Amino acid sequence: MRSSQRLRLTVAYDGTGFRGWQLQPAPHRTVQGELEAVVARLAGRPVRVHGSGRTDTGVHARGQVAHVDWPDDRPPGDLRWSMNAVLPDDVRVLEARPAPPGFHARSSSTGKEYRYFIWNAKAVPPELRHIRTWEPRRLDPQAMREAAVLLVGTRDFAAFSANPQREVSGTVRTLHRLEVRGRGPEVCLVAKGDGFLYKMVRSLAGFLLRVGRGERRPEDGPRILAGGVRTAEVPTAEARGLFLWKVLYGPSRRQA
Amino acid sequence: MRSSQRLRLTVAYDGTGFRGWQLQPAPHRTVQGELEAVVARLAGRPVRVHGSGRTDTGVHARGQVAHVDWPDDRPPGDLRWSMNAVLPDDVRVLEARPAPPGFHARSSSTGKEYRYFIWNAKAVPPELRHIRTWEPRRLDPQAMREAAVLLVGTRDFAAFSANPQREVSGTVRTLHRLEVRGRGPEVCLVAKGDGFLYKMVRSLAGFLLRVGRGERRPEDGPRILAGGVRTAEVPTAEARGLFLWKVLYGPSRRQA
Repeated sequence: MRSSQRLRLTVAYDGTGFRGWQLQPAPHRTVQGELEAVVARLAGRPVRVHGSGRTDTGVHARGQVAHVDWPDDRPPGDLRWSMNAVLPDDVRVLEARPAPPGFHARSSSTGKEYRYFIWNAKAVPPELRHIRTWEPRRLDPQAMREAAVLLVGTRDFAAFSANPQREVSGTVRTLHRLEVRGRGPEVCLVAKGDGFLYKMVRSLAGFLLRVGRGERRPEDGPRILAGGVRTAEVPTAEARGLFLWKVLYGPSRRQA
Repeated sequence: MRSSQRLRLTVAYDGTGFRGWQLQPAPHRTVQGELEAVVARLAGRPVRVHGSGRTDTGVHARGQVAHVDWPDDRPPGDLRWSMNAVLPDDVRVLEARPAPPGFHARSSSTGKEYRYFIWNAKAVPPELRHIRTWEPRRLDPQAMREAAVLLVGTRDFAAFSANPQREVSGTVRTLHRLEVRGRGPEVCLVAKGDGFLYKMVRSLAGFLLRVGRGERRPEDGPRILAGGVRTAEVPTAEARGLFLWKVLYGPSRRQA
């Protein structure tokens, strides 16, 4: 009987050319699909790659995490190098190392950090067009900061999710941090929490953009949260500005 | 008789999908070709777009400048907006305004600023793969700074150009500034001068990268300059890291 070894991969990708993370039938390119094809080629047999969670079409990652059970106790010496030599250039394995016993990319995770990048000027520099959300109207970052503070904490975020009925673990999450960095042209939203509902970061970004444009006030956030249902007041901001920045595996900050 | 009006355009582009700035026969996409097609469409007749100079295949721009004689004394109200509505998304007109009398994008220019971006880490984040030069070996920015300082000034840069025989105005140029910014992963070279020979910035970058890797010493720069001929000691760094950042039209710093 062959033994296998569980490995942990840190993966970055440009989401522009992918129909998201999760495997889909051909002809749709997905990040999971590309990784599984490369692992199968190197391992000599099909092997599942388990991500920490999905990302949608057009969403990018700097620090997605996945685990894989390598069907042999001796994976290639420098697996990161071997995988990058074969992977298409819009996906890179940044790290590949043995995982601690029982490690699971999704269920061991204690939280995530997303970053949402906005370019606030008359035009987006063309080389950044796939990785910045364009906002031509002048944003008020101070109002956005005031609004962000009012959304931090343990709350029912149903009003900031796209499909609350489908959330198997309910709609209460802890948003540890929601920061608005920069004053333009580049504005970056940093969202860190114990978990995020479907399209929650893009909904938070959509609301903060409205506040920045003066269409909503910071105090509207708590009122919308309390309403508990998604309404047209909260638009979903574009995918292109969003990066899954980091998956957290330390002790949960809730317990800290 | 119709009058015309000379306009000055500031243009940004992602050079990845272009065979450089200068118009070429089909099927080659060029930035000048795209701009002339759009101007012809808006003006109703063919109009030449004159750039400040060429950029090579794969080289980007944040601040290329061009002039155009609009064949009418009344160009569209918001020409920038009209052009961007029709241009492909890898070119943007950042500004369009009436040019002062006698303005010529190339011959009125008193200098240029280029920036060369290096990503010094085990892998380039995939969304930056077309706009950063990857350097996996650890660079020594201090040595690069020492080397850069020794190259600044009015000198014969023939040894740092690709085709010195073809330079109609000789090979002496004034490099006002050559800076090495950052310590990694992102390192940015800033080169500002009264003019640059063919592939001069990429040659300076290629040499500084060698110094950063410890393959050459800072003092080798003046020796190579003095040699006056291009040798294999100076490699041409990749196009993808290079941006034409700004074209200068103020009074020349030589006279200041």
